[in-house]
Amino acid sequence: MSDNLEPIERLTDMFRRLDGVGRKTAERYAHNIISLPEADALEFAEAIIKAKTEIKRCTVCCNISTGDVCDICGNDERDHTTVCVVEDPKAVMAIEKTRQFRGVYHVLHGTISPMRGVTPDKLTIKDLLARINNSEISEVILATNPTVEGEATAMYIAKLIVPLGVKATRIANGVPVGGDLEYTDEVTLRRALEGRYSML
Amino acid sequence: MSDNLEPIERLTDMFRRLDGVGRKTAERYAHNIISLPEADALEFAEAIIKAKTEIKRCTVCCNISTGDVCDICGNDERDHTTVCVVEDPKAVMAIEKTRQFRGVYHVLHGTISPMRGVTPDKLTIKDLLARINNSEISEVILATNPTVEGEATAMYIAKLIVPLGVKATRIANGVPVGGDLEYTDEVTLRRALEGRYSML
Repeated sequence: MSDNLEPIERLTDMFRRLDGVGRKTAERYAHNIISLPEADALEFAEAIIKAKTEIKRCTVCCNISTGDVCDICGNDERDHTTVCVVEDPKAVMAIEKTRQFRGVYHVLHGTISPMRGVTPDKLTIKDLLARINNSEISEVILATNPTVEGEATAMYIAKLIVPLGVKATRIANGVPVGGDLEYTDEVTLRRALEGRYSML
Repeated sequence: MSDNLEPIERLTDMFRRLDGVGRKTAERYAHNIISLPEADALEFAEAIIKAKTEIKRCTVCCNISTGDVCDICGNDERDHTTVCVVEDPKAVMAIEKTRQFRGVYHVLHGTISPMRGVTPDKLTIKDLLARINNSEISEVILATNPTVEGEATAMYIAKLIVPLGVKATRIANGVPVGGDLEYTDEVTLRRALEGRYSML
């Protein structure tokens, strides 16, 4: 028996499905589970089932939510004419932490990536278009990540929505606050220069 | 809603119990689960339950096993007079991969660590002593990790078993194969020098 036991092997395979988890790490996690008291392991399994069954998508913005409509979409104090389009629920959380944005969101659940088989119809773009057609939206901020796929997705959506009479804006690129020019890549630095603004 | 949803929060807490998983990583894993198809998430939960319920400890060596006696202890071709004492099941797998060792194992499931509340009675030391008393064991190789706790645990066990007429040996320390002296810490290098052997 130089190999793993079958139940550990199966659990290891499960952990490998998580982002950035390789074989060694997945094996370590599986052994961690074996070392947990039985009640804790069952609680872990239950938490997975509950998270998966209790969490659905907000029928308005497609963000994850425990109700039919998420707390942000259901909040009358938010500005429902400004929609910030993001790739995933974690981006919503990141922007909410700034306490700067008072509009609402639209979560794409990915970016267009023909290489990985993600075509536009796999994202919530049609829901966004329906939302623009059915409600008063004046500005859509495209806040996908500044990656090749994020940029392409933003451009794809912008081309679809501008003809609908909506203003499409893109978040700025630049040197991160607290960052160091010396360690900033050229593309970012070039964008930071292009986006320079007058100080006084 | 700038905070996480409760089911995600709970699942994040679960993932944080795994070794080396901090808040950010646990949150990422929880979101990974949410993104899985429902069947896969349920399969994941089931794999945890199965691994936990199907895997027990070998009644002889305390290694993890699906049967009452593990494949190694049940193998008559192994040398049952030489017992290699290790901290955990992963160490057994590591040694088995060398295909060098033909003896059997004893898994402690930890090291003595008063700081973390792990006293000798929390480990399987008494099972080892019973094994030595009830069977023909001539040598016990103490193969706990070369850490402060691993060394202390090896020494503690050696002191208990030598009076029982058993030879207690410790695995060698030295420069890892393929390693570089320049990047080897002084303690390891000192041990490597102490353990030098004649070449011809």
